[in-house]
Amino acid sequence: MEGGAAASTPAALPYYVAFSQLLGLTLVSMTGAWLGLYRGGIAWESDLQFNAHPLCMVIGLVFLQGDALLVYRVFRNEAKRTTKVLHGLLHVFALVIALVGLVAVFDYHRRKGYADLYSLHSWCGILVFVLYLVQWLVGFSFFLFPGAPFSLRSRYRPQHIFFGATIFLLSVGTALLGLKEALLFNLGDKYSAFEPEGILANVLGLLLACFGGAVLYILTRADWKRPSQAEEQALSMDFKTLTEGDSPGSQ
Amino acid sequence: MEGGAAASTPAALPYYVAFSQLLGLTLVSMTGAWLGLYRGGIAWESDLQFNAHPLCMVIGLVFLQGDALLVYRVFRNEAKRTTKVLHGLLHVFALVIALVGLVAVFDYHRRKGYADLYSLHSWCGILVFVLYLVQWLVGFSFFLFPGAPFSLRSRYRPQHIFFGATIFLLSVGTALLGLKEALLFNLGDKYSAFEPEGILANVLGLLLACFGGAVLYILTRADWKRPSQAEEQALSMDFKTLTEGDSPGSQ
Repeated sequence: MEGGAAASTPAALPYYVAFSQLLGLTLVSMTGAWLGLYRGGIAWESDLQFNAHPLCMVIGLVFLQGDALLVYRVFRNEAKRTTKVLHGLLHVFALVIALVGLVAVFDYHRRKGYADLYSLHSWCGILVFVLYLVQWLVGFSFFLFPGAPFSLRSRYRPQHIFFGATIFLLSVGTALLGLKEALLFNLGDKYSAFEPEGILANVLGLLLACFGGAVLYILTRADWKRPSQAEEQALSMDFKTLTEGDSPGSQ
Repeated sequence: MEGGAAASTPAALPYYVAFSQLLGLTLVSMTGAWLGLYRGGIAWESDLQFNAHPLCMVIGLVFLQGDALLVYRVFRNEAKRTTKVLHGLLHVFALVIALVGLVAVFDYHRRKGYADLYSLHSWCGILVFVLYLVQWLVGFSFFLFPGAPFSLRSRYRPQHIFFGATIFLLSVGTALLGLKEALLFNLGDKYSAFEPEGILANVLGLLLACFGGAVLYILTRADWKRPSQAEEQALSMDFKTLTEGDSPGSQ
């Protein structure tokens, strides 16, 4: 950690991050509680295989994806390279867990003879998964794989951030659609009788939306953005020197 | 229109705005087509009253709300006060149309003896409507009603922008949940047989998400933000003069 001034952390940031983590962990536990209490729990080799789908998606494409976005705010004073690797790794974990969730639902459909990919939830879900994979691959080749020119990185960075946040929000929206689908398929008319499962799942839905909002708030607060660090400033100067032919001292 | 430098419009902005408007108008027409082709059209004094609900919500809480957010990008070179009034007015239109949509569904439920506010869609919908109304009232008293101190406006502005975008995205999410609900209630098992209505509504859902994404992209592009204008710079200087005791010339 270098650069005294850059080491400061905004006073309110840790509280907002803690709140988002509390929301995220509540989300994951509540999804587990819903599946355990009202859907018979989770098992791979039975009809309970379906239940692996919502749990994997909430852990991978909501909680871990959200946390991967927050890495640059939480570890704002660590070396950029470390933060970058952690960001990439969290997204890999999220992708793998989401893949298990995808396999679970396709496998379940195949065994039960159900049609695949007919619903709005499934269309959004496949779109999110493909976009997420493409974003990871493009992000990796621009920012982690050595060789991408600095100017290209600078031009792609805002797009990477916008699409990262958009894919995350689309993941939250897709989870809400899936939750709604699960409720309407299984509860039917009982949903309108304010069954406990319906209330629990509605609260889970609101918490999903709140987690999305909390992550978005932390990401978009202008004064909480990661400060530019000495090493990056030096790199940026080296690059300017190379392209403009100036000496660093002339900046 | 004053301030020569401020009069420039980024080259790509009009194309993105035109694309968003094309998406928005397609959304509204497609919602109308869906209700006309597969749901028997719209009428107030019959069972068709329900159909006023999705149409009003897509026009008010999606299309008009989205356009109200874009006003500061589209009319970036007009006087700030004119833009502000247009922003406020578009939101009023959106609120009134959404209110008609709300009355339609509550009235329909009452006549049919259906339960109110049991579903995740309805919970999110009521939350969105209340937040939207509160945001409008707070925004009006801070920015349009004279008297709010300049320092308070400056501190509230980022919150107003964040919550405005969040309420818009939550509106899009709620519309997706409602669409899904309408499909599962009415199509039932036919949904998985790839019925034309299901495909049309899924495409409508994807377009809703795309419109949300397009508005968000235009709003968040840093270089498309509204430039600070001569009149506002002068106001800001006057304020600084008042609070810091400096002369405008010393800036």
